[in-house]
Amino acid sequence: VPTVHPATSSKRELLNVVDELSRLDPEARIVRFRSLPVDCQQAAFQQLDPAHQDEVLSLLDETQTAKLIEELAPDDRAQLFELLSPARAEQLRGLLSRQKQALTDNLLQYPAESAGRIMSPEFLPLAADTRVSEATEAVRKRGRSKETVFALPVVDVDNRLIGMTTLDELVFAAPETPVRDIMETDVPSVRSDEDQEIVARLMQMSDVLAIPVLDEEQRLLGLVTFDDAMDVLEFEETEDMARTGGAEPLGRPYFAVSLLQLMRSRVVWLLLLALAATLTVNVLSYFEDVLNQMVSLSLFIPLLIGVGGNAGAQSATTIVRAMAVDEVRARDLLRVTFRESRVGLLLGSTLAAFAFAVVWVFFGQSLAIIVSISLVTICTLASLVGSLMPILANRVGVDPAVVSAPFVTTIVDASGLLVYFLIARAVFNI
Amino acid sequence: VPTVHPATSSKRELLNVVDELSRLDPEARIVRFRSLPVDCQQAAFQQLDPAHQDEVLSLLDETQTAKLIEELAPDDRAQLFELLSPARAEQLRGLLSRQKQALTDNLLQYPAESAGRIMSPEFLPLAADTRVSEATEAVRKRGRSKETVFALPVVDVDNRLIGMTTLDELVFAAPETPVRDIMETDVPSVRSDEDQEIVARLMQMSDVLAIPVLDEEQRLLGLVTFDDAMDVLEFEETEDMARTGGAEPLGRPYFAVSLLQLMRSRVVWLLLLALAATLTVNVLSYFEDVLNQMVSLSLFIPLLIGVGGNAGAQSATTIVRAMAVDEVRARDLLRVTFRESRVGLLLGSTLAAFAFAVVWVFFGQSLAIIVSISLVTICTLASLVGSLMPILANRVGVDPAVVSAPFVTTIVDASGLLVYFLIARAVFNI
Repeated sequence: VPTVHPATSSKRELLNVVDELSRLDPEARIVRFRSLPVDCQQAAFQQLDPAHQDEVLSLLDETQTAKLIEELAPDDRAQLFELLSPARAEQLRGLLSRQKQALTDNLLQYPAESAGRIMSPEFLPLAADTRVSEATEAVRKRGRSKETVFALPVVDVDNRLIGMTTLDELVFAAPETPVRDIMETDVPSVRSDEDQEIVARLMQMSDVLAIPVLDEEQRLLGLVTFDDAMDVLEFEETEDMARTGGAEPLGRPYFAVSLLQLMRSRVVWLLLLALAATLTVNVLSYFEDVLNQMVSLSLFIPLLIGVGGNAGAQSATTIVRAMAVDEVRARDLLRVTFRESRVGLLLGSTLAAFAFAVVWVFFGQSLAIIVSISLVTICTLASLVGSLMPILANRVGVDPAVVSAPFVTTIVDASGLLVYFLIARAVFNI
Repeated sequence: VPTVHPATSSKRELLNVVDELSRLDPEARIVRFRSLPVDCQQAAFQQLDPAHQDEVLSLLDETQTAKLIEELAPDDRAQLFELLSPARAEQLRGLLSRQKQALTDNLLQYPAESAGRIMSPEFLPLAADTRVSEATEAVRKRGRSKETVFALPVVDVDNRLIGMTTLDELVFAAPETPVRDIMETDVPSVRSDEDQEIVARLMQMSDVLAIPVLDEEQRLLGLVTFDDAMDVLEFEETEDMARTGGAEPLGRPYFAVSLLQLMRSRVVWLLLLALAATLTVNVLSYFEDVLNQMVSLSLFIPLLIGVGGNAGAQSATTIVRAMAVDEVRARDLLRVTFRESRVGLLLGSTLAAFAFAVVWVFFGQSLAIIVSISLVTICTLASLVGSLMPILANRVGVDPAVVSAPFVTTIVDASGLLVYFLIARAVFNI
């Protein structure tokens, strides 16, 4: 571990330091962090994941801690405090200056994962009749302490948002122009309790640098900036991905969670899915006489339910993603499920054509017929269920990602077996 | 369908129009598009997905088409042309002015999904000894035609990048200051052939507005801006999500692909997975004598391989995502697989404890022992395989997302059955 490190203000070097810090084990991380020059410590700390910030702080004394958290951006500080136990958050809050305490308290009053939580309350509001030269002067004098001056909100005397302008428009315009003439009115904005994912998607669609956050009376509370939106999108994708795999989101980097936390994120879903899977035992028990008469039927059980699970997973992940990026909405239910059922029918027919030939050669005509018909039915059913479930979840207010692949697979397993044995019984007249 | 529409330059109304256009059926879309006032057509067209742009253009005459594509940003035009057949792309290229042809040709020479493809070649380079007042004047005069003036690259006489500054720094600084004094040196930059996802993640980490793209001799070719990075991240997540579900990415919005395209995106993977699943038929055939002696063993086949598949999917999606956001790298293989195996062991033991009690009550002691031991072994194996496969894929240069849930499930199915029957044979001494 190096003990001397040259002072650095280079962005690229800072990125390397943050990257290195993120990957180290906790003990090595704090040693490395202490080895950094003070100005670099501050810059690196701001870039760390909140889980790592927490860890670093717990090993520093009060003076150092106070300095590091005082300099955090208000929204980053709110994110860190949210992660801490109430007692620890209260302790850290006590180390802040009055002004920073107020800023933090203000953000933390908004619900978790809302626009209010991720907005920056440090912005530079302009009045509509201010001239461009005066506005530029205001940016010059008071802009440094703001999170952004690229996006500049325009407000009335009651702090109600009436438009937005940007720093380049100030530069382009003649000095005498009133801000009113260069501002855009009717810009995208959100309420403070809006879901952070919706804010981020709105920003992505509208290609703006910042989205204003308003209270119920249209008064400006803060700005959500593009870098926060990018972090939100990454966070939300990670959440969706975890749910797609049938686990609870970790909320922290992979190596920042313990073995037990990893296990806890998975065990409840795994138990619930296993419980649901006992349905398959019931179905098989019910058809035990059929199985006894023809053990060779059991040879195809894993293959059939495997194919069904895969077809269901394909539909489910497609639809969950299409809903996440707003290409599919709850009201498209009929259109989507009809579409997916036909895709499933096509896929099942293709597989059945192959299976029919192969199974006939090795296991005879009857089994070939049963397996082929089952494949067509199971694939259609799987695609139907795989597309129906996420949309239904969305309708009842549940994250569609929760009911994706593993959930669909389990449902399709039991119903697929039912289909298989009913067809077998019909073909063999058992 | 409304036939009269008031002219609008409002961003929010534009967003609504684009959103509406994206959701309509192709025929309704073109009718609605034609009903827009001309200036709104232009603005809406620029915001449409390339697949929808293509569709709209195919129904317009040459004059209208020429106007719409001439006004597109160079990187957006490159993206549209990439989607078209070579003949169609050549036809549209012929409608462009010489200058726009050259800009487009220039971008299209870079590999697909590279930094060169998504960069904007329209930037405003500054010289290091320019004074801030002169630089501001340059922005005022020539900035409007650039994709961004928020980020300003500083170059030497050979167009080599020596630093970056931002518009707010120009405003903050005294007019006489040379740009050299306010620029940041050693900023994050990429080569033109760098993967677009790496560029986007770099931008997300460094919170900058634009990343400079350089050739082999450090000469500045263009800037990748934050809004392009956000689109890249969304595109890459959608790709990963499709692969996680065992399908090829569509590359277009859900409703912009036909039934046959949907089927094509899935059928190859489904066939390959089904082929791999025939392994399960082989394993079961091999143990047919055991099955014949004890048909009740077959009752637990779907449950056991279902649990194995779910545990494997949990590990795989966790690791695929951790690799996508660079929390886990290929060299972490041993650390990760050891960790995941222990998580699998813990999960399997928990499930086994429940299963042992329940199976004993309903099916007797022997089956309870077999099922419990199988659960522990299968969960451990599944978590191991689920974490190992994505990392191995990455090592051999394959997208980790390709080998996730359905792939892992299929492997775990066959090996899980093997484990189950070996344990059964050992317990029953068959």
